[in-house]
Amino acid sequence: MSILIVGSVAYDGIETPFGKRDRILGGSATYLSLTSSYFCDDVRLVGVVGNDFAQSDIEIFKNKGINLDGLQTDNTGKTFFWAGRYHFDLNTRDTLDTQLNVFERFNPVIPEDFKSSEYVCLGNIAPALQSVVLDQVTNPKLVILDTMNFWIEGAKDDLVKALSRVNVLIINDSEARELSGEPNLIKASAIIRDMGPSTLIIKKGEHGALLFMGEEIFAAPGFPVLDIFDPTGAGDTFMGGFAGWLAKTDDLSPENMRRAVIYGSVMASYCVEKFGPERLMNLNQDAIQYRYDAFRELSEIPDNHF
Amino acid sequence: MSILIVGSVAYDGIETPFGKRDRILGGSATYLSLTSSYFCDDVRLVGVVGNDFAQSDIEIFKNKGINLDGLQTDNTGKTFFWAGRYHFDLNTRDTLDTQLNVFERFNPVIPEDFKSSEYVCLGNIAPALQSVVLDQVTNPKLVILDTMNFWIEGAKDDLVKALSRVNVLIINDSEARELSGEPNLIKASAIIRDMGPSTLIIKKGEHGALLFMGEEIFAAPGFPVLDIFDPTGAGDTFMGGFAGWLAKTDDLSPENMRRAVIYGSVMASYCVEKFGPERLMNLNQDAIQYRYDAFRELSEIPDNHF
Repeated sequence: MSILIVGSVAYDGIETPFGKRDRILGGSATYLSLTSSYFCDDVRLVGVVGNDFAQSDIEIFKNKGINLDGLQTDNTGKTFFWAGRYHFDLNTRDTLDTQLNVFERFNPVIPEDFKSSEYVCLGNIAPALQSVVLDQVTNPKLVILDTMNFWIEGAKDDLVKALSRVNVLIINDSEARELSGEPNLIKASAIIRDMGPSTLIIKKGEHGALLFMGEEIFAAPGFPVLDIFDPTGAGDTFMGGFAGWLAKTDDLSPENMRRAVIYGSVMASYCVEKFGPERLMNLNQDAIQYRYDAFRELSEIPDNHF
Repeated sequence: MSILIVGSVAYDGIETPFGKRDRILGGSATYLSLTSSYFCDDVRLVGVVGNDFAQSDIEIFKNKGINLDGLQTDNTGKTFFWAGRYHFDLNTRDTLDTQLNVFERFNPVIPEDFKSSEYVCLGNIAPALQSVVLDQVTNPKLVILDTMNFWIEGAKDDLVKALSRVNVLIINDSEARELSGEPNLIKASAIIRDMGPSTLIIKKGEHGALLFMGEEIFAAPGFPVLDIFDPTGAGDTFMGGFAGWLAKTDDLSPENMRRAVIYGSVMASYCVEKFGPERLMNLNQDAIQYRYDAFRELSEIPDNHF
């Protein structure tokens, strides 16, 4: 199966308590496409870069077999740049700089060949643009959407419109509370699913994730990472692993959705071990499977009778 | 096997967003003994009550077969009283009143018949008193200790002394961070286990619990409770279910420790459904087993190969 990925391609400046990178490849579409390329050999990226985008970074995508026919180069400006500094506990960060540059004028034009993609990943961009993408695709099997507090607060109407057209929403716990206006996550999930997405994933950082699908709830554990180096991109990476597994297997059963959540968690747990997307450039299937099995061991409850 | 339980017996005044009780049976030894009585038929309580303690409350323990030979009645004063109000999200509470009363002079004298108890539960009391209990017992198979921020901040030396003599410590995540001085829970667990307890359980509220034992980590999910009525006693109840299951089975293997964590979680998830210990008075083995199975379903990761 094919995956269409729409999101940002950026350069990030990142400071964590463990070090610093002035300018490293970033953006939601970068993490999504690199991650899903481990599962799916037909990954299609739609995004925009500026006149400063390095050929060596183009090669990073090409080395993973990612189709860049939808990557626009806007020579009138520079690539989206973001800089931030993480605090000691890595749970909070300050934005130091945001230069939207060519991303401000981004119009996601889906190439003709990409319109029939079976799996559609709407990375974290303006909800109105997510809807523009949905206007262009034809009959996808599954549409997965990511968003953030910024859009919940500033573009709620657009977001609600986009949500009515998606199958899976992936957000974190504070966003779920904000979007629903309900502190209890179980109640919040019902309110959000009434907005459109029949399947909902709530990410809880170090505490794992919850999958709501049909009448089922699945609680995925957080992986005990000893040294979190840089949390940037962990959420996009989760989504890339989730979508990648589903596209690889083309199986939307509840059981396989659980596997997809774990593969997403596996990829995110690797991502945070190095700066930016560095760790995502040199993984292999053995490493991914090894950690999948570690997740199973971590949360296995033995059968038992009273 | 027998369980010795030492802790407070109290009256609580509780206000939650869902209602109010002016005076309801409470205290760590109450929750611990009621809960473990579902698993073990030789539960031995050591605590103190005052001249106002109702015979009807004595009957609550007796109905569950709990041995009260170690329950002192101090006629010179009243029973420990605590009152608190929970906030809207139930994660924080204000203490409205604390009257230690006879509990201030509590000296845990272990009856001769109780000294050879195989399982010892040291509920949340002053660490110096927890050590006084350990001075009296002879060769227990397993000693389990609960504590709180109050003692970590105010009686750290006493606590460290007590910890050097216990097998299992049960604390919550903020307490683990405070006790170890380390924000990462995986690193914190190593620091704390170096203080004595070879096994550590870190409770994370709605996010479940982590069990550290040998080289293994077990992540237990939080149960998706739709209506949390009153969180009072949930931690003690967890410990009672954990200890009760171990005493019932007398099996300290890592696999059985995982079961004990889930039975603890099951009992805590029931406890919060009603005020105080009300829900703990009318459970049965079928209800407990039913929810154990629900925990398994909730967190089951299907086997898989890439």
